[in-house]
Amino acid sequence: MQTRRNFLTTGSLGLGAAALAPTLGFTAEATRNQRIVLASHPSGKPTADNFRLESADIPKLRKGQILIRTEYLSLDPYMRSRMNASDGYAASVKLDNVMVGGTVGIIEASRNDKFKVGDRVMAYSGWQSYEVSDGTGVSLLDPRINPASYALGVLGMPGLTAWYGLLKLGQPKAGETVVLAASTGAVGSVVGQIAKLKGCRVVGIAGAAEKCKYAVETLGYDACVSHYDDDMAAQLAAACPDGIDVYFENVGGSSWEAVMPLLNNYARIPVCGLIAHYNQKQLPPGPDRMSLLQSLILTKRIQMTGFIISDHYQYAPEFIGDVAGWLAAGKITYKEDVVTGLENAPEAFMGMFSGNNFGKLVIKV
Amino acid sequence: MQTRRNFLTTGSLGLGAAALAPTLGFTAEATRNQRIVLASHPSGKPTADNFRLESADIPKLRKGQILIRTEYLSLDPYMRSRMNASDGYAASVKLDNVMVGGTVGIIEASRNDKFKVGDRVMAYSGWQSYEVSDGTGVSLLDPRINPASYALGVLGMPGLTAWYGLLKLGQPKAGETVVLAASTGAVGSVVGQIAKLKGCRVVGIAGAAEKCKYAVETLGYDACVSHYDDDMAAQLAAACPDGIDVYFENVGGSSWEAVMPLLNNYARIPVCGLIAHYNQKQLPPGPDRMSLLQSLILTKRIQMTGFIISDHYQYAPEFIGDVAGWLAAGKITYKEDVVTGLENAPEAFMGMFSGNNFGKLVIKV
Repeated sequence: MQTRRNFLTTGSLGLGAAALAPTLGFTAEATRNQRIVLASHPSGKPTADNFRLESADIPKLRKGQILIRTEYLSLDPYMRSRMNASDGYAASVKLDNVMVGGTVGIIEASRNDKFKVGDRVMAYSGWQSYEVSDGTGVSLLDPRINPASYALGVLGMPGLTAWYGLLKLGQPKAGETVVLAASTGAVGSVVGQIAKLKGCRVVGIAGAAEKCKYAVETLGYDACVSHYDDDMAAQLAAACPDGIDVYFENVGGSSWEAVMPLLNNYARIPVCGLIAHYNQKQLPPGPDRMSLLQSLILTKRIQMTGFIISDHYQYAPEFIGDVAGWLAAGKITYKEDVVTGLENAPEAFMGMFSGNNFGKLVIKV
Repeated sequence: MQTRRNFLTTGSLGLGAAALAPTLGFTAEATRNQRIVLASHPSGKPTADNFRLESADIPKLRKGQILIRTEYLSLDPYMRSRMNASDGYAASVKLDNVMVGGTVGIIEASRNDKFKVGDRVMAYSGWQSYEVSDGTGVSLLDPRINPASYALGVLGMPGLTAWYGLLKLGQPKAGETVVLAASTGAVGSVVGQIAKLKGCRVVGIAGAAEKCKYAVETLGYDACVSHYDDDMAAQLAAACPDGIDVYFENVGGSSWEAVMPLLNNYARIPVCGLIAHYNQKQLPPGPDRMSLLQSLILTKRIQMTGFIISDHYQYAPEFIGDVAGWLAAGKITYKEDVVTGLENAPEAFMGMFSGNNFGKLVIKV
């Protein structure tokens, strides 16, 4: 946890909780749940109006249930697509429902034999301070994960995304060139450092100059170019004299366009995100380059594979073994961007789409 | 060899051979070589002006050389991309050079220990009646291949393309839906029949009604829709009630556009050709759907893999074992479209881009 920030609570987050009646059959307890719900679907970039902070009673536990107090909430770009009215690759969050998100929490009360009070767990409680759960999808934190918040980053979903996408789909070989965008982010920083461990030339794409500096000086990349520069494509070409063998795609947009002409035959492109397009309201004007991409895939014998990491959780033990070992040996480093206070989650989340965060964004609830 | 056609020799094919002096160091022999050279680069669809029929002396063999008389020449869509001025995934044919192409031939003379007169060989002699070769890339015909012309089709490059692309990249599972365009062609007819053998639902896309009828009645597909019909996309959707798990892409264009909305999660798309785009002079007007394809790959976790079969010849023995066995057992059928006379190759080739051929196009030289 190298950096900490605090956002002022935005005045535009309405407190609608007082209007909410306790849910039928549940009774109030001493502590109330703070939660952020989807107030409206964004059009383009998310805005403060899309979120609403509420306070609600915590229902009494029934048999088999547990009460989880959220310690850390992960904020990730994929959440933007869950805010749409129509379902993407996963069901959308419905209006007035709690925003989804991976969490680390503590069991505060338990009527479930699998969990006891004080257990630290991985959960998917979402943007709220408490969750009542029947235990589905909740698991004890792997004891190799320390500090606990790493379970949301380098040793959690983003780390597994990096490890699986790079090693299982990208299959980098020593001496090959690996390019990644968002290269100092939660996923990118792990991709790049693993690629270096595998003997590759690693070239990152990032925004701010301090991120590029960090990519080269701290993460050990061979080069890093900034997409803020007008000549980014030329800089990338210069940094990849032998072309590109693996492009780890989590951005799209101008990064992808700079990569396209540099791809080598047999290049592999794992696709785990397209943050540059999540806020796109309509397709850009022509010409229609879809067939250009099809032709590129054919003529360069490219393999492009979309993946969602939740399909591949069976690799988690192998992944944690690898990456916890590398962390302990000082072979990879990890940077968190911890924001304190659930009420600051919307603004921190919106900042991701402007490149404001530096390191894995985590809310300390 | 179910069908035979003859084209009239086109008057526009100039006979420029008389003007060619024998190459320095070579001497004339009794028989002369007939050859078709690239006269100009096409713009869009190839025309007769792009080809020139020539007659030339056959050089005397030097030590290590063989003289191959072409029996059969394969005509394939990929040749169009070799006619461009700039290189695609393989080097272009230079102006005034012989058009490239796979052939079956007979050794007429040999000063090479590996070949004796009368041997039947696989070669890459191109569009000519004789080739003098040092034996590079020439191999004895596998004795399991009978008739010999099948070495250019179901038991040759197109068959291997189908077998490798479907089985190694498409990985169809019993009960899945496999869709293929150009579904009665040299590649498609093998893809579809192997997919049926693997227990898949197979839906073809073809042009003429007689091809669709053939796909269902002879090749055994579950359904076949015609891209001549305005409502092809709706027909395809109706024929794929469970969506599409494997799309074997060798066409692009309207077939691909009809497939896109039907793709299931985890769909596999081997891409071995894009015949609908080979003659494209410029990108179509917008909107720019490139990001739509990227998003589709991500959200549906699609794997799209370009491949060129010459990278995978190591699979040839396994492939010939499989497919020759299925042919012998009557489990797959094969249709050739044999055109007699080298001089008819250009017109037959041009006809491929209008869907004129029905079955694997082979020139009997």
